[in-house]
Amino acid sequence: MGRVTERRRVLRIRDGAVSTRPDTLVAEEPLEIRLGGKPLAITMRTPGDDFALAAGFLVSEGVVGRAEDVANIVYCAGATQDGSNTYNVVDVQLAPGVPLPGITLERNVYTTSSCGLCGKASLDAVRTTARWPIADTPAIRATPELLAALPGRLRAVQRVFDRTGGLHAAGLFSPEGELLDLREDVGRHNAVDKLIGRALRNGRLPLSQTILLVSGRASFELAQKAVMAGIPLLAAVSAPSSLAVDLAAESGLTLVGFLRGGSMNVYAGEQRIDLRARRHGRRAALGRPATS
Amino acid sequence: MGRVTERRRVLRIRDGAVSTRPDTLVAEEPLEIRLGGKPLAITMRTPGDDFALAAGFLVSEGVVGRAEDVANIVYCAGATQDGSNTYNVVDVQLAPGVPLPGITLERNVYTTSSCGLCGKASLDAVRTTARWPIADTPAIRATPELLAALPGRLRAVQRVFDRTGGLHAAGLFSPEGELLDLREDVGRHNAVDKLIGRALRNGRLPLSQTILLVSGRASFELAQKAVMAGIPLLAAVSAPSSLAVDLAAESGLTLVGFLRGGSMNVYAGEQRIDLRARRHGRRAALGRPATS
Repeated sequence: MGRVTERRRVLRIRDGAVSTRPDTLVAEEPLEIRLGGKPLAITMRTPGDDFALAAGFLVSEGVVGRAEDVANIVYCAGATQDGSNTYNVVDVQLAPGVPLPGITLERNVYTTSSCGLCGKASLDAVRTTARWPIADTPAIRATPELLAALPGRLRAVQRVFDRTGGLHAAGLFSPEGELLDLREDVGRHNAVDKLIGRALRNGRLPLSQTILLVSGRASFELAQKAVMAGIPLLAAVSAPSSLAVDLAAESGLTLVGFLRGGSMNVYAGEQRIDLRARRHGRRAALGRPATS
Repeated sequence: MGRVTERRRVLRIRDGAVSTRPDTLVAEEPLEIRLGGKPLAITMRTPGDDFALAAGFLVSEGVVGRAEDVANIVYCAGATQDGSNTYNVVDVQLAPGVPLPGITLERNVYTTSSCGLCGKASLDAVRTTARWPIADTPAIRATPELLAALPGRLRAVQRVFDRTGGLHAAGLFSPEGELLDLREDVGRHNAVDKLIGRALRNGRLPLSQTILLVSGRASFELAQKAVMAGIPLLAAVSAPSSLAVDLAAESGLTLVGFLRGGSMNVYAGEQRIDLRARRHGRRAALGRPATS
């Protein structure tokens, strides 16, 4: 974890005072993901959990779905001109029988940007390749109270953010609200890929009994990753995009946004939000009998 | 601008009340950028200013530097199976004599992710291709007071953010703090590319007499775009990454982070921060003579 943060000298200007001091920054370095020795994608990431990141990226892209699909992941030595290892290039070897994705120029563009050619084509692509259709997963239900408590639990263990202010966090919770895993990264999609990759490597896919919470906004890309990992409920502290909502609606994903301070918006998949206690509470607040 | 936001029905849960209402979301759709008819990159963006986005992306990648370098930009018709125009695919035709970048698989990975193979290689790549070395540009200097006023000016005109909460903003300011241009996008890199692309098309590159302010964090990618457009000062409301600071230090870019509430951190290029008034003020506050 030594490269998660880096120290730099900074000139600090604060209301009438100029000082020089060391500052802790979130580390950002590129990771090239190779598949069978061929470049597949490059992502700007915070070093750490690189094998999980590569594995999770391949889950998100529909290439692998079980721990056994990956034969090996290694750092590539000799990635620089002087032959030293930068630990910024990983190569994934698929198990025998796992088909390589067709790496054409178009396909490569597709995988690198994690999106499709147009809104409709993207939705089609995700729906076609999803291994575990969310609509088919066992039902989980969460009350608004349970969801409202999650951001505080995520923040409480966000260690690197506290030091740098520069990280996105993604947390995986049980249906009872227990934090199962947390990853932080300079890129929000990387934090989610790291969670998914760790689950793959631990034999825990599909994540059909989990809730995914992200610290920022819910983009199409994050919704896509949730769908590909079989996660039925994605909650975001901030706003979703139009395409994230469309994908959620089409794939059966429950999408919650603006989850902060006891309030939230449910954009899709309302059937997984348990409103019985809430409706009960509202009646009680209005002075009606607590029984219905 | 009709596609900048979209309306969706949302279930709103707020402290004891459940209601259904329409909600305004930031629009997110993929844009495929083609160069001479060949796919170059796909980015998830908020529709609008698509030609500027494509042009700015090509500036950031070192392909073009003057308005005359671009012969034509068009939306590709027939991008869907039924032949209708999605307005999600643009094709850029370069002017005669402007060399096409070598679109190999590696190169394509590079351009799509806007980064290099490792930290060092990235810095080398940007330094080599920069058309207007920032160290050579006429000096601009900004006082902390001037910088501190910029986020408020940006926010005052951020119309879409106010409605959706889902957008990144990038503003271009004069050395006197006047807002020259503002773009909002679901992707922070797109907002900056749109600013740069508009400047290219208006014949205003290099942007050597400007300050770029971004509403979020300062990643390597944003610092790279500033360097490629000849922008000497990049300020961010939130944290920079380690690689953004390294690139700024090596390329002569002034990088300011955590610009909020009258305070800021200067991570590189301190020579463009005018501290005379500030030091004067500190002495006065200490009860010493105002003259030095």
